[in-house]
Amino acid sequence: MEEQADFPKEITRMSVDFDRWYTDVVRKAELADYSPVRGCMVIRPYGFAIWEAIQRAFDDMIKSSGHENWYFPLLIPEDVIMREAEHIEGFTPEVAWVTEAGSHGKLDQRLAIRPTSETIVGTVMRKYIQSWRDLPQLTNQWCNVIRWELRTRLFLRTAEFLWQEGHTFHASADEARAEVDLILDYYRQIAEDWLALPVLTGTKSRAETFAGAEYSKSIEAMMRDGYALQAGTSHYLGQNFSRAYEIAFTNRENVRELCHTTSWGISTRMVGGVIMGHGDDRGLILPPKVAPIQVVVVPIYRDDESRARVDAFIETWEAGVRGMGVRLHVDRRDDRPGDKFNHWELKGVPLRLEVGPRDVEARQVTLSDRLHPGRDEKRTLPAMALAEDLPHELARFQRELLQRARDFMAENTFEVQTLAELVEHFKTRNGFVWAPWCGDPACEARVTEETRGVTTRNFDLDAAAEGACLVDGKPAKHRVAFARPY
Amino acid sequence: MEEQADFPKEITRMSVDFDRWYTDVVRKAELADYSPVRGCMVIRPYGFAIWEAIQRAFDDMIKSSGHENWYFPLLIPEDVIMREAEHIEGFTPEVAWVTEAGSHGKLDQRLAIRPTSETIVGTVMRKYIQSWRDLPQLTNQWCNVIRWELRTRLFLRTAEFLWQEGHTFHASADEARAEVDLILDYYRQIAEDWLALPVLTGTKSRAETFAGAEYSKSIEAMMRDGYALQAGTSHYLGQNFSRAYEIAFTNRENVRELCHTTSWGISTRMVGGVIMGHGDDRGLILPPKVAPIQVVVVPIYRDDESRARVDAFIETWEAGVRGMGVRLHVDRRDDRPGDKFNHWELKGVPLRLEVGPRDVEARQVTLSDRLHPGRDEKRTLPAMALAEDLPHELARFQRELLQRARDFMAENTFEVQTLAELVEHFKTRNGFVWAPWCGDPACEARVTEETRGVTTRNFDLDAAAEGACLVDGKPAKHRVAFARPY
Repeated sequence: MEEQADFPKEITRMSVDFDRWYTDVVRKAELADYSPVRGCMVIRPYGFAIWEAIQRAFDDMIKSSGHENWYFPLLIPEDVIMREAEHIEGFTPEVAWVTEAGSHGKLDQRLAIRPTSETIVGTVMRKYIQSWRDLPQLTNQWCNVIRWELRTRLFLRTAEFLWQEGHTFHASADEARAEVDLILDYYRQIAEDWLALPVLTGTKSRAETFAGAEYSKSIEAMMRDGYALQAGTSHYLGQNFSRAYEIAFTNRENVRELCHTTSWGISTRMVGGVIMGHGDDRGLILPPKVAPIQVVVVPIYRDDESRARVDAFIETWEAGVRGMGVRLHVDRRDDRPGDKFNHWELKGVPLRLEVGPRDVEARQVTLSDRLHPGRDEKRTLPAMALAEDLPHELARFQRELLQRARDFMAENTFEVQTLAELVEHFKTRNGFVWAPWCGDPACEARVTEETRGVTTRNFDLDAAAEGACLVDGKPAKHRVAFARPY
Repeated sequence: MEEQADFPKEITRMSVDFDRWYTDVVRKAELADYSPVRGCMVIRPYGFAIWEAIQRAFDDMIKSSGHENWYFPLLIPEDVIMREAEHIEGFTPEVAWVTEAGSHGKLDQRLAIRPTSETIVGTVMRKYIQSWRDLPQLTNQWCNVIRWELRTRLFLRTAEFLWQEGHTFHASADEARAEVDLILDYYRQIAEDWLALPVLTGTKSRAETFAGAEYSKSIEAMMRDGYALQAGTSHYLGQNFSRAYEIAFTNRENVRELCHTTSWGISTRMVGGVIMGHGDDRGLILPPKVAPIQVVVVPIYRDDESRARVDAFIETWEAGVRGMGVRLHVDRRDDRPGDKFNHWELKGVPLRLEVGPRDVEARQVTLSDRLHPGRDEKRTLPAMALAEDLPHELARFQRELLQRARDFMAENTFEVQTLAELVEHFKTRNGFVWAPWCGDPACEARVTEETRGVTTRNFDLDAAAEGACLVDGKPAKHRVAFARPY
């Protein structure tokens, strides 16, 4: 269908080189860019608006269930960050340290720039938690963090990124575990209902668990190259951090107990997921719910006279459409219509309305759809009904985009029983591959070694394990999804 | 009127010790707290919600005039931050430096944690600015910054704070100057229309100008102790930064020119302004537009039976009031009503509704007002009209609070002609004191020395200078406001 299409020349085609396609799209669609600071990105307005839409949606969700936004310090003294051994072992290789400050010179103690804030939040919150009456504490913050990475990739892995980190404190393990699941489901909703990305939800293997957690759950989305993107994680920390940071409360029986805590986060990485989970050879395809521009209008005219008529016609319905909450942009630049089409296709705008003199006469617009750029017959919509029709068209687009991603995920999900089958599979293709696993980290490591990088993503929450471990043949404990991860 | 009142015991009375009152209120009203990190604060949900309201209001304003949110890196390489000499001279004493990173050890070059981002924004933006067609660029970011301060004060002066920083790039000086004024007016609107704080707007003296700017304008609010709070600043940077960072464009005549740039910011300091600009001996008084809780309901009952009736009655109108967008909280804790009254007065909730069995019978609530806690006759409102009445009551409260602050500012604004008068004035009281000034920094410094800390705030934009300089008697260039600043 797309064979005859005129592909944008600014970007490498996805089918030719996925990695270069990704970087080209991020930069040419003006989402983000590298900066003069090694490993740190600049997020440009078109990319930042997607993050703002995710923020607004998730912030509303957590506030509706009683979570509160706080702000905790960026800098964490070395003696504070060092108290939970497993945690700091996991993070020290990536910590950036402040050692000097202006006219004060060398500091007495190094200060870590937060790679994540369990340690400082715990240190602060223990002051506010005395008795069971003070629980639960459901805290969240939106902030920047730094993890020193040398191999970076815009949005997916950068030294600095933006995220929300939730930290909650509970009187019982059950309540904390329920919180982990509540948030995981919020993350699933953000991915599926907002970003049109279906996800696997489940528990991670020990090797993939957050440093210091009892267990971690995640959502894993499938990118268009069949790689997995861990797009959000929710951790049950048990009493590990409350032991290290003495976060205790007096229970109803007047006995001191340690809190049960959780932490969870989603980041600007999600923007990378939107790009790689939906794009095509022409560039981005954005889900209407988070698209900075949902509908672009391209006026088509031959001369000043027809231009004036087209403009006047657009003005008759433009405000009405905006009034319905549709994010509409009229591209009045002097460029050729064909260049504008390419430009907005590259930027992934869901719907395009062309308006020429003939449309003006017929009081209509011609609708094109980013999901079906090659569709033969373009549809027309009557102008008087646009304010009513466009929200429906956008909702339809959102549904179709989700369905396209679901179909893609279904077509690229497989089941194997043995290591040989799995190795063979990943020689020629990617995707999610389910297999039975005994739970031994040695078997997991063997898979990664033999496949050069395939790892366990998460366990099937719905199905019990059956059969024999794909590596050592011992009874399987988990049905687990393997994939190449970003 | 308040003599008989039972003041909260948790806080020092404002009239006894303003500084201790401030710290007590910030902590006991659960706005913010000191953290284990020297000079850094923890912003608690009740304080953070005020900041979120300010953010939302200002973000809407700037987006409506075409400004866009970006995100720029936290870390700035030393060679980048060092290029504008005056700027870096102003900021180096306060810069925190990252010198080591995890397993990578010592870095080749120190990285500054941004104290403000002119340098990195300029370095990034010059890539996106080629011709006059790319201008103006109206960028903004919401972020954290660090300025190493030893003498800190919650919200007002902390090593880390949150703010927005705007950075704009224009083809002409006139356009950039107009931008400075547009933003200054937005700041005035935030202060007056949202925070009920009247402000002086004007240009600052050279000594008070931002390091690297041609001129700075500010809004100055008066606190209840008569001190001035610089609550927002808007700077015209001329071509200083575009020269240092080579931010040039090709104009319509095809000639290369340097951009004219601006920068401007408001921060969490504004929350401190709300506290000190409105509070009283009982604690906070919050403007309804930014109050996390606008109306608190205190049920009053003798026994379980009357409690059930009161609760059922509240439920008949609670949802309707919320449906009007009123931020309502029903305090169902088991504490005594008197304790609840003190608690919510301390937290500055504008309106309180008491609901007892007699109110239930009369289908009414009893209204108290945080501005008039001692008002003899409490008013009653019919329950069936609450959804309609409360928004009006909140609007009335907002107006009265602004008027109270305007009256206070008028009562505490003075005019002097000589240094002797000015010194005499500040021996016994504070406030804004207008005086004629020749513009010589030596005269300005002399005032500060003789008064131990009084500085110029800003120039009168409306009135020309008349008469002789208060210090050296030379012809006055400015009518300038003097005050003790925070």
